[in-house]
Amino acid sequence: MPVDVVLLLYSSWILGACVLVSGADRILRFSEQGTFKILQVADMHYGNGASTGCSDLTATQMPFCSDLNTTAFVRRLIHEESPDLIVFTGDNIDWAASDAKVSMDAAFAPAIESNIPWAAVLGNHDVESNLRRPELMEYIAQLKNSLAKVIDPPAEGVYGWGNFYHSVLGPAGADTENLSLLNLYFLDSGDNSKLPGIKGYDWIRRSQQIWFSNLSQKLRAASSAPALAFFHIPLPEYDTVLYRDQISGRQLEDVYSAPVNSGFFSTLLESGDVKATFVGHDHINDYCGKLMGVHLCYGGGTGYHAYGRVGVERRARIIVATINEEVQGHFPNISTWKRLDDTHMSKIDTELLEL
Amino acid sequence: MPVDVVLLLYSSWILGACVLVSGADRILRFSEQGTFKILQVADMHYGNGASTGCSDLTATQMPFCSDLNTTAFVRRLIHEESPDLIVFTGDNIDWAASDAKVSMDAAFAPAIESNIPWAAVLGNHDVESNLRRPELMEYIAQLKNSLAKVIDPPAEGVYGWGNFYHSVLGPAGADTENLSLLNLYFLDSGDNSKLPGIKGYDWIRRSQQIWFSNLSQKLRAASSAPALAFFHIPLPEYDTVLYRDQISGRQLEDVYSAPVNSGFFSTLLESGDVKATFVGHDHINDYCGKLMGVHLCYGGGTGYHAYGRVGVERRARIIVATINEEVQGHFPNISTWKRLDDTHMSKIDTELLEL
Repeated sequence: MPVDVVLLLYSSWILGACVLVSGADRILRFSEQGTFKILQVADMHYGNGASTGCSDLTATQMPFCSDLNTTAFVRRLIHEESPDLIVFTGDNIDWAASDAKVSMDAAFAPAIESNIPWAAVLGNHDVESNLRRPELMEYIAQLKNSLAKVIDPPAEGVYGWGNFYHSVLGPAGADTENLSLLNLYFLDSGDNSKLPGIKGYDWIRRSQQIWFSNLSQKLRAASSAPALAFFHIPLPEYDTVLYRDQISGRQLEDVYSAPVNSGFFSTLLESGDVKATFVGHDHINDYCGKLMGVHLCYGGGTGYHAYGRVGVERRARIIVATINEEVQGHFPNISTWKRLDDTHMSKIDTELLEL
Repeated sequence: MPVDVVLLLYSSWILGACVLVSGADRILRFSEQGTFKILQVADMHYGNGASTGCSDLTATQMPFCSDLNTTAFVRRLIHEESPDLIVFTGDNIDWAASDAKVSMDAAFAPAIESNIPWAAVLGNHDVESNLRRPELMEYIAQLKNSLAKVIDPPAEGVYGWGNFYHSVLGPAGADTENLSLLNLYFLDSGDNSKLPGIKGYDWIRRSQQIWFSNLSQKLRAASSAPALAFFHIPLPEYDTVLYRDQISGRQLEDVYSAPVNSGFFSTLLESGDVKATFVGHDHINDYCGKLMGVHLCYGGGTGYHAYGRVGVERRARIIVATINEEVQGHFPNISTWKRLDDTHMSKIDTELLEL
């Protein structure tokens, strides 16, 4: 059965001694200090580099701005935060990219040159250059230090390109060095609806939810590790939470979800391991809000070619998982903040995401 | 695999010569005039019969009213409309039933004595007497002329009790006498959330959606017949449609859906065969509205013990599938209206549900 084959491929570590991560070449693990830090880079919208202009800056900033400002910002972020993993949550490139591979090389260059492991999912705009989703993800998956994986949808029966996961093991030498303390899911939220007569964005399909759900069940059987999920398009519940919770951060535009609710949020609730989701897509929303125990977070727009709002600095989210065994046992708590691309890289909206 | 076993059980007619309906004892088919009429009876809320009082009537009506008024109304409906199938969409009995079997015998008596095939699903209130969902559905399934079926959830991996389907074949002697021209799905929308910390109604789970989706795929491979779905609790999209479409009928109370959207509406869209859904639950909502090509209809409350509103007559929905081969080929169009329990059994809100 398709889903089982996926699980065999991706969960072989479960069948073994719980020591290998999900088909990855590179093992992710907590530092000796018990931390694991993720930099989320949302919506770079990279084009052709120096010749691609910027959006929504002041008249004095605009003439001197290009994709290279995005590159410089991502480099600054990496230098400032020294993350253990960089996650690009889609719309990495867009229509302005004449050659998708060249643009992706440039867009991901700060990650590649840092020698830090990184992963990426696709957004709705990545397909606007000269490659489709399968080629885009296959290219990303083979780039240096990339942890991205491609399930072949026709073979595996799972919709989308770039549904994969990684586990983060305990610190080297610790009792937990072979145990997953944090699981990271990456999903392809697609581009546009494929149903005739239904306009709007695509959605996380039932086959992806079955894949996720079965995987989550196996991971939970192995450990009680919390999990985080990364994808591009916000779930409709990102709107719901605005009426239910005091959000941190800002909502400066509507939530542009798919036109239908495919139920992934209820699938997350039923599985129970995912404590927070991180998306992009709506560049000037950068909030987190908690709905029924799940934190729904935006990254905030990183890219200068992408739309933004004059006076709202480009930004990126940092997520830190921290183990304090004396207080909470093996499994980490999760905190998060954002960095702005201003003079001092202001650190804002620091918060603990209560699990 | 669980789902496949279900399909083997329930779709054996596909593997044969497309002549048998879904494990049913009784074949449903269109009349020689090319019609198939369904009476939907929603929310009888049957208790102990003559000793169970009524709700929300005028002070002069109240002293003379009991469950027997519900019985009389269902008898009148059957006599007036002569349906080919009666569908009870849940909350057939409630807390007032001292013995669930006795109450169900009485509640379904008008259908049983009519010798017309009937089916039932469960609502959220049926479990308030002395039987749980498995026993309730097993009892219903063995009643005379009942077409209801029980999948054993632990064995089949499909959540709920009373997920089943039936096909309606072409008229006897017609070219289509062995072909399904209309498929009817019945689903268990559950009672209350089973997730800790999440209050509110249960929802149509992912396993049910997989069951539905696989079944729909096989049925669609066999014919292009449209389909209807019957269950108790409205989908959240019953609320959405209020802001998108001009509804027929009335919305006199809020839509009381599950607290999360499990994505069954998007599953319906992806499958494409279900043209209309029929629910109960909100007794004084009786509207139909069309959202993205799917008609979302309420039955309107039938039962006198159940809450209602003074001055709003108890009512039931009639659904007629009609074949006009010269105009539309083999497959039927669907029209619907309601009957009120007033002196003349007023027929209201007649409409064609555009497919």
